[in-house]
Amino acid sequence: SSRRNPKSWMDTEHRVILNVGGIRHETYTHVLKKIPATRLSRLTPNLANYDPVLNEYFFDRHPGVFAMILNYYRTGKLHYPTNVCGPLFEDELEFWGLDSNQVEPCCWMTYTQHRDTQDTLAVIESLDLDGDPPTQEEIAKKFGWEDDYYSGTLTRWQQIKPRIWSLFDEPWSSQYARLISCFSVFFVVASIISFMLKTHPTFRIPHIEAIFEARPIGRSQGGVDRDKWFVGLGKHLTVPHDAFFYIDVVCNVWFTFELIIRTIFCPSFHRFVSSPLTIIDITATSAYYFDVVLHVAVPGIISLYFPDFISIFCVLRLFKLAQHFSGLKILIQTFKASAQELLLLVFFVLLAIVIFAALVYYAERSQINPSNQFTSIPAGLWWSLITVSTVGFGDMVPKTYLGMLVGSLCALMGLLTIALPVPVIVSNFSNLYSHSQARAKLPKKRRRVLQA
Amino acid sequence: SSRRNPKSWMDTEHRVILNVGGIRHETYTHVLKKIPATRLSRLTPNLANYDPVLNEYFFDRHPGVFAMILNYYRTGKLHYPTNVCGPLFEDELEFWGLDSNQVEPCCWMTYTQHRDTQDTLAVIESLDLDGDPPTQEEIAKKFGWEDDYYSGTLTRWQQIKPRIWSLFDEPWSSQYARLISCFSVFFVVASIISFMLKTHPTFRIPHIEAIFEARPIGRSQGGVDRDKWFVGLGKHLTVPHDAFFYIDVVCNVWFTFELIIRTIFCPSFHRFVSSPLTIIDITATSAYYFDVVLHVAVPGIISLYFPDFISIFCVLRLFKLAQHFSGLKILIQTFKASAQELLLLVFFVLLAIVIFAALVYYAERSQINPSNQFTSIPAGLWWSLITVSTVGFGDMVPKTYLGMLVGSLCALMGLLTIALPVPVIVSNFSNLYSHSQARAKLPKKRRRVLQA
Amino acid sequence: SSRRNPKSWMDTEHRVILNVGGIRHETYTHVLKKIPATRLSRLTPNLANYDPVLNEYFFDRHPGVFAMILNYYRTGKLHYPTNVCGPLFEDELEFWGLDSNQVEPCCWMTYTQHRDTQDTLAVIESLDLDGDPPTQEEIAKKFGWEDDYYSGTLTRWQQIKPRIWSLFDEPWSSQYARLISCFSVFFVVASIISFMLKTHPTFRIPHIEAIFEARPIGRSQGGVDRDKWFVGLGKHLTVPHDAFFYIDVVCNVWFTFELIIRTIFCPSFHRFVSSPLTIIDITATSAYYFDVVLHVAVPGIISLYFPDFISIFCVLRLFKLAQHFSGLKILIQTFKASAQELLLLVFFVLLAIVIFAALVYYAERSQINPSNQFTSIPAGLWWSLITVSTVGFGDMVPKTYLGMLVGSLCALMGLLTIALPVPVIVSNFSNLYSHSQARAKLPKKRRRVLQA
Amino acid sequence: SSRRNPKSWMDTEHRVILNVGGIRHETYTHVLKKIPATRLSRLTPNLANYDPVLNEYFFDRHPGVFAMILNYYRTGKLHYPTNVCGPLFEDELEFWGLDSNQVEPCCWMTYTQHRDTQDTLAVIESLDLDGDPPTQEEIAKKFGWEDDYYSGTLTRWQQIKPRIWSLFDEPWSSQYARLISCFSVFFVVASIISFMLKTHPTFRIPHIEAIFEARPIGRSQGGVDRDKWFVGLGKHLTVPHDAFFYIDVVCNVWFTFELIIRTIFCPSFHRFVSSPLTIIDITATSAYYFDVVLHVAVPGIISLYFPDFISIFCVLRLFKLAQHFSGLKILIQTFKASAQELLLLVFFVLLAIVIFAALVYYAERSQINPSNQFTSIPAGLWWSLITVSTVGFGDMVPKTYLGMLVGSLCALMGLLTIALPVPVIVSNFSNLYSHSQARAKLPKKRRRVLQA
Ligand SMILES: [K+]
Ligand SMILES: [K+]
Repeated sequence: SSRRNPKSWMDTEHRVILNVGGIRHETYTHVLKKIPATRLSRLTPNLANYDPVLNEYFFDRHPGVFAMILNYYRTGKLHYPTNVCGPLFEDELEFWGLDSNQVEPCCWMTYTQHRDTQDTLAVIESLDLDGDPPTQEEIAKKFGWEDDYYSGTLTRWQQIKPRIWSLFDEPWSSQYARLISCFSVFFVVASIISFMLKTHPTFRIPHIEAIFEARPIGRSQGGVDRDKWFVGLGKHLTVPHDAFFYIDVVCNVWFTFELIIRTIFCPSFHRFVSSPLTIIDITATSAYYFDVVLHVAVPGIISLYFPDFISIFCVLRLFKLAQHFSGLKILIQTFKASAQELLLLVFFVLLAIVIFAALVYYAERSQINPSNQFTSIPAGLWWSLITVSTVGFGDMVPKTYLGMLVGSLCALMGLLTIALPVPVIVSNFSNLYSHSQARAKLPKKRRRVLQA
Repeated sequence: SSRRNPKSWMDTEHRVILNVGGIRHETYTHVLKKIPATRLSRLTPNLANYDPVLNEYFFDRHPGVFAMILNYYRTGKLHYPTNVCGPLFEDELEFWGLDSNQVEPCCWMTYTQHRDTQDTLAVIESLDLDGDPPTQEEIAKKFGWEDDYYSGTLTRWQQIKPRIWSLFDEPWSSQYARLISCFSVFFVVASIISFMLKTHPTFRIPHIEAIFEARPIGRSQGGVDRDKWFVGLGKHLTVPHDAFFYIDVVCNVWFTFELIIRTIFCPSFHRFVSSPLTIIDITATSAYYFDVVLHVAVPGIISLYFPDFISIFCVLRLFKLAQHFSGLKILIQTFKASAQELLLLVFFVLLAIVIFAALVYYAERSQINPSNQFTSIPAGLWWSLITVSTVGFGDMVPKTYLGMLVGSLCALMGLLTIALPVPVIVSNFSNLYSHSQARAKLPKKRRRVLQA
Repeated sequence: SSRRNPKSWMDTEHRVILNVGGIRHETYTHVLKKIPATRLSRLTPNLANYDPVLNEYFFDRHPGVFAMILNYYRTGKLHYPTNVCGPLFEDELEFWGLDSNQVEPCCWMTYTQHRDTQDTLAVIESLDLDGDPPTQEEIAKKFGWEDDYYSGTLTRWQQIKPRIWSLFDEPWSSQYARLISCFSVFFVVASIISFMLKTHPTFRIPHIEAIFEARPIGRSQGGVDRDKWFVGLGKHLTVPHDAFFYIDVVCNVWFTFELIIRTIFCPSFHRFVSSPLTIIDITATSAYYFDVVLHVAVPGIISLYFPDFISIFCVLRLFKLAQHFSGLKILIQTFKASAQELLLLVFFVLLAIVIFAALVYYAERSQINPSNQFTSIPAGLWWSLITVSTVGFGDMVPKTYLGMLVGSLCALMGLLTIALPVPVIVSNFSNLYSHSQARAKLPKKRRRVLQA
Repeated sequence: SSRRNPKSWMDTEHRVILNVGGIRHETYTHVLKKIPATRLSRLTPNLANYDPVLNEYFFDRHPGVFAMILNYYRTGKLHYPTNVCGPLFEDELEFWGLDSNQVEPCCWMTYTQHRDTQDTLAVIESLDLDGDPPTQEEIAKKFGWEDDYYSGTLTRWQQIKPRIWSLFDEPWSSQYARLISCFSVFFVVASIISFMLKTHPTFRIPHIEAIFEARPIGRSQGGVDRDKWFVGLGKHLTVPHDAFFYIDVVCNVWFTFELIIRTIFCPSFHRFVSSPLTIIDITATSAYYFDVVLHVAVPGIISLYFPDFISIFCVLRLFKLAQHFSGLKILIQTFKASAQELLLLVFFVLLAIVIFAALVYYAERSQINPSNQFTSIPAGLWWSLITVSTVGFGDMVPKTYLGMLVGSLCALMGLLTIALPVPVIVSNFSNLYSHSQARAKLPKKRRRVLQA
């Protein structure tokens, strides 16, 4: 066609040679003008990197990636190459003055995958999984004593404080810190095992003093006196073996001690108190003291039942182990990073169970069915959740043919509904986990490249 | 061999140099003739891009991808490169006049993966997940008033209609729209919670007026009169608490109001009425009115049982939430896009459960077994589905050794049969989900490249 | 070092320039001798592709891939590139006279992945999923009449036979064939539904003639006479409704008719008779006739129980649907291709259940436990399989603490043991499925590249 | 800006041309100084590979990969290319004197993936899955007779020993070895089937001699005499059928024979005795003899119960099959390689079940609930593990609404908690499995490349 043939148009003088790292790329000058305000659109022979002999511009950049850059000018479409790492390409884009956000939809996944990797790396960095002992300077910075440090006027207290803190908070910092961390783990585990075992009938003894319960009328009359009704020996009327009392005392003495030390020696009181682990610690410890006080103050039946209810907070201490096990840190981070997907999962599950609960309720009423267990839709919710999650306890089972059909659909569709968002969450976890594993294998200190 | 050695054949004058983007590719002239009617097969020195000095043809295209293009000529096989994005390669193919359908079987996956990505992107575009407020022009187009818009003769009604519509249908368009959308979600949730709770015994009160049921004979005699049999108080003879009546009234007033407003202000009545969400809305709302009418007209036992059966349609309103939650939109699209795989799943499951139901039925009859629960093959279908989906309620369990063997095979094979098509569906979902996530992170408006 | 510095060694006259597709690769002559008996080791200036002016050898091959080829000579290690398709690289290897089996262990996965793809493609080709109508020549070949076809002496029978055959065996060949295939599917489904429903109590009627059973002694005395004991009406003493008899007759008349037609018109009797589908067909049809004969010949109790046992073979007819649904074909192929992995799965499961059955048996006997359900290890096998597959019917449950510990380990380890080989099987399925989907979307007939 | 323009700076005399495998890369001399003590930082024109005519340095290396190497100098960031295999890139890094540990965080996954592949290959090599018969030299080395072998003074014993050993330990070495390995598998399977079947009531006969049990007081008085109390016939008072005694004798004679032969002919007694399979063998065999001795020595009730408890060790012989089935070897290696992930899984599960056990215990006590099955937290542990693993036996089920809510969360969160670490373990297995499959398909002996 005529548009293609004009010799003048195609003349070599309209061509421009770009020597990128030794490889000569060639295009038309007007192509480089297509994306204005970029390094290539502003090329003039006045530039230092223009070689008049060879009639070329020299750029000391990656020659392979430049083919993709130049292709953006040619076609107007920014595609990511898949033979180099995302950040490498983005560094090149930046050098050439291009915007990585202009990426074509077909390369969105390549683009976001790299962004996700960067997020993952940032999270892992923040987790402080197995740090090297910080330098004096870093410590001073953390405690906010930069001025004193640089002027060399650290007081004795300022020298001791960080040491005690790292003894209790940075298990990897020294031998003693590791010992204290073992103690800490031991007491957490001991207190939780004690908490669990003391509910077991084997470790409970019948309450020896006669138990009378105050009926509402009785209670209004007065304190703990003889005119209450005798209740007899029931399950509630047993108390845990005395040994558990002593275990709890020892554990809680340690927890209190640890909490006080940490409060005194923490770098920043505000940040320390507002951290989730401290809140857990304070809640669990004060729950214990509340329990003890209640036990002493109110000797009746309430003190027998209520206290072990409040001690459920001590289970939260399990999360304190996150300080010592990086796996738990990664689990918590995974759930944090997957908040949106977890919500999606819960939303999908709610959707499925509401629909199937309603269907099974009416399906089971479609036939005369004396052993109908689906007495209401809320009861059906429990059944459909247990079916959807493929647990299938079997405590409620549809008996009619229509109910079975609903149950079959529930089992299949539910399975799918749950299966859909799970891989997204799982992939968040494996990203975090595999990157943390990779980091653990590589040297911490990296050789720096000289800046010429 | 003689075929290789003839000097004349190999002579450089049979060679052709193709300068693609600065990189010189070289081949024999006859190679370019192998695929006729393409840009390269028609090369002649008369072309403007022929340089007689260097004896080469210049093309301003991606040099790396051209190696694959030229390889197609050389080997007669079209392979996709994996270091560049599919669409980039297809753009090159198009430029060189080649047909991407001629791709080799070994590259089918690369080829279709890119096609699937394009389908996914089209679906996400159509979902209108979080649009920018449309321009005046786009609105006029949507309502079919282009002529009036361009002539500037929009009536007052034509100016108000789109505003009201966006208030009710485009939650992101304004503050008020967001408020109305919250109202809408609230009433949907309220009506469904009310629907579920009113089936619960706690919220049901015994029906106070004496209930008589008409036996077939009694009914043939006449209307609702005293000579029917007294039935007594059963489960069916309770009615939900009055509060639910008022909740339902309020909710349905809103739904009716919303439906009327939407009907009046919709851009296209036909498209509005035929959309699945409108059909659900109309069905659910009319079911309510049908229920109310029935309740008033027929005061007997039927009105007590039948109405809450019809109200099951109100559960469908859950899908109205799709308007407000993009996750639900993606779920629905996933099931739409995976229709074929879902069918496959159902087909596989049917196959497995029919075979195992027949096997377990005869297996359980192979021994004398008084507690045999597998009384018929249809009953076995339920058992095998529940086993295959690994729910395992335990309401039916094989008792004989042969039955246990069948059950074992059913558990293992069924597990496999279900596991096979699920990943295909899951991957459809993650494609849609991850692309929608990627889109949400990227800027909506993209800088346009100048067309030189 | 001295080995690196000798000027003569490094002299350019020891260098060789290889112009591959326009890109000049350069190496030392001795490097090319490292792999003897290959195209590059035999290079001499006498070759036609040697250019004395430029002092280079020209090869019209892919320049990018050649970098990997040359690297094999340089390093002695054959690595696969990952930016081009496996077969493309292997074509190049073949051209250069290299053996793809010499691939380095780190590239085994790349290597086998491509082999697997080729296997998958071969399987899909053999499945004949949705063929084009074959040409006259192909038909003649299939029926073994090439000679008659080329001589043009096909008899009338030779012309009709393929048409009838394709009518019954190739549903896509014509409108009539599609109709007959629908009939076939309908009768298969009808016969199986009839088979299932006639076991259901609703569709069974009590056996009207008085039933007497011959006790061992009674039977030794003689035939079916009055001195047997009356047994009464039990479950076995019902017969299916007469309607099923007529349905079965109609279905089996069709199956017999189809089988006869196919036997007469099949291209090769031997191949037809030995195909699994024909064997299923013959078995199921003869089972029906055997049943009928038995029913007529032996009017006693045996004929009532035995016949419906034999009719279980009719369930196998489900696999005949594979002819009509490509999904089922792919499922069957998956299990064929995964035979080794299925064996592995069964082996792992057997290993796990034997160990856990033994452990739970002794664990449950460790405490005095009157409700012990684990009376023997074989009974424990059933429990551990049901636990390992996470079905968990709950018909057998450990009651002791030690048993619960074993159960917990069983649930966790079993889960893992099963989870391990499943993904391999799933990936076999998705390979087959996605390739078949890809093939369905691409044009069947491909443009041929001219052989210059 | 002024920093970019100084002509002298950009002058071509500050540029250096690196001809890598024929492709000319170009950069500034100061760039190569950025990473000191590497091959490129030490370039001088005195080197033999410097060509003064073309003013370039020649390196006979992969030109494509060098672009990434040079990019490291330019940007100071080491990225892995993804179009070539990891080891190929690392070989290049080594040649250029660079450290692969300096890889950028964004390429950690590429880096570790290759490391994992190498680990996998090392494991597979060590598994000795299907070896070729070793040479005489290798055998002599294995038995520590190198000196005798090279001096040619192998005694008759030194010639026979390896043959007998390979007969019993290397099933692939000869026909006879395969036969003996079949025997070995047969006896293992037979002994385990016997072990399982003899616990089954069908194969147990009532103990014929009258059984009296010694009450504590009775036992203190003396031996096995008549003044003990008669206990009666219970489950414990049955003995397995005599046939099992003979089966056990035959099996154990073989195992003893095998063990003795292996002990005599093993290459290294120390390594043989400390291998896990030998320990299993010795334990299981001695358990049998202990059982026999006990049975003969103590004829009372203890000998009836205790012996079959000890025989549980014979189940361990299943692991001896690993010698014969490579699948089992891979399973064991997977668990070894995934030790860390298994620990993580157990830790996550423990965390989840402790939390949910505590929650459900108090939830179920929140309402008056006479059928409460959650009597203690340890009992709740069993329930929450069975729920978390989605087995769901249904022996314990929450009855209160709060308990159901806890159960729902437990089913969903538990599902996730377990789903997270499983894919890591699964991927360890598929790596090992697929590499072992790949190895099996490739030729064992590889052509060696000549070292020029
Ligand atoms: K279950
Ligand atoms: K289950």
